[in-house]
Amino acid sequence: MLRSYLICISYDGTDFCGYQIQDNGRTVGGVMLHALQRVFGEVVNVAGCSRTDSGVHALNYFISFKAESNMNPETMVKAVNANLPDDVVVKNCREVPEDFHARYSVISKEYEYRMYTTGVRSPFLRNHALFLRYPLNIDLLNDAASYFVGTHDFRSFMASGSKITDTVRTVYKSEVSAAENGLVTFNIAADGFLYNMVRIAVGTLLEVQQGKIRPEDIKNIIKALDRNKAGFTAPPHGLYLKEVNY
Amino acid sequence: MLRSYLICISYDGTDFCGYQIQDNGRTVGGVMLHALQRVFGEVVNVAGCSRTDSGVHALNYFISFKAESNMNPETMVKAVNANLPDDVVVKNCREVPEDFHARYSVISKEYEYRMYTTGVRSPFLRNHALFLRYPLNIDLLNDAASYFVGTHDFRSFMASGSKITDTVRTVYKSEVSAAENGLVTFNIAADGFLYNMVRIAVGTLLEVQQGKIRPEDIKNIIKALDRNKAGFTAPPHGLYLKEVNY
Repeated sequence: MLRSYLICISYDGTDFCGYQIQDNGRTVGGVMLHALQRVFGEVVNVAGCSRTDSGVHALNYFISFKAESNMNPETMVKAVNANLPDDVVVKNCREVPEDFHARYSVISKEYEYRMYTTGVRSPFLRNHALFLRYPLNIDLLNDAASYFVGTHDFRSFMASGSKITDTVRTVYKSEVSAAENGLVTFNIAADGFLYNMVRIAVGTLLEVQQGKIRPEDIKNIIKALDRNKAGFTAPPHGLYLKEVNY
Repeated sequence: MLRSYLICISYDGTDFCGYQIQDNGRTVGGVMLHALQRVFGEVVNVAGCSRTDSGVHALNYFISFKAESNMNPETMVKAVNANLPDDVVVKNCREVPEDFHARYSVISKEYEYRMYTTGVRSPFLRNHALFLRYPLNIDLLNDAASYFVGTHDFRSFMASGSKITDTVRTVYKSEVSAAENGLVTFNIAADGFLYNMVRIAVGTLLEVQQGKIRPEDIKNIIKALDRNKAGFTAPPHGLYLKEVNY
């Protein structure tokens, strides 16, 4: 019997060209498809919860697929992991209704962006957090970040060239905090994200920190519906897909 | 005027074939020498504080050298860092007496070994901590680790084939603890270490955890002066040179 499954994976995006399968380049989707085929033989309707860029990481990323199988979820997790390289891992697996889809069934997602400003760059964080040479004012950044919350047309925060036309999204959470380990994190949850939306939001927050714009200017940047009004696109290696709610 | 300097560096050992310069293979020593020569022209008496194996990391590693220079330490740090790849960084630099030597002037060193046992392996720790499929009993491991403290002939904890004849070392600290981030760390400080001593000590502690030997057996393993009596050599990627005291 063809069953529908949802698996949760985590990956270090450093050595991947993103999720989306491509002809050239090692992708998370490609590596996962190969492992699923090794375990199940044929798998169909394989769908990832989002496209992630090259270098972007995932703490929790979801993939739905259908396969003929009688394996229990625990055995399945071990079997798939035995066929994966060490920069990606299956955390858990569950059976889902037939019409479930990892991308279209998403209710909301949360991303985290990690930065640090300690005196000297860390070799250990080179691919995992953005190093900044200036201190961060958490209160100032939080003030700025709060303007993202709500239902807005986020066209100003979409990479130019993106073909999407419905650019209205609802942001539920947008917070900057100092973590214990010295990292500063920006957490943003929404019902959906435009292409590069989080990275452009981070770049804009950093321009607030640099004094180029004021926190309240973000209101007008959103209203402008113009990518040129927002800040730069922060690099991918600080970005993590943190949670997906179905 | 030829001045003597001591620089403190940190590196992620993942992509290095250890510290020691070799003809083939990218080494920390090779990369550092290249950067120092770019900044100072000629550098002489370049010495690292210890040999570290391929895959071993350093939070604080010291290199002494002599060069003709009038640069202040802060400028020097920036100049050298501008010539280094992103997996190694200079943290600070100071002038030292003429007869100072990064290796021979060492009073004591501390290593840290990182392990974790959370349900599933982490893609983010694949090169930075040892993943274990069984839980660790911190009290049991601490009991075992305590037998390393003191002045002993540690021949049983030296890689076979090592040519060193003076195998007596004094261990000042030997402790296992659970860190906040879910890691379990083994910290060991001594006036010196034999080749693979920390990794064999970790392998032996893990055999205590596995019930193959009792904590107090470590006393007899030390007395045996026989590598075959000690445990396996734990892999290099969990090991960090943490501190060096001069």
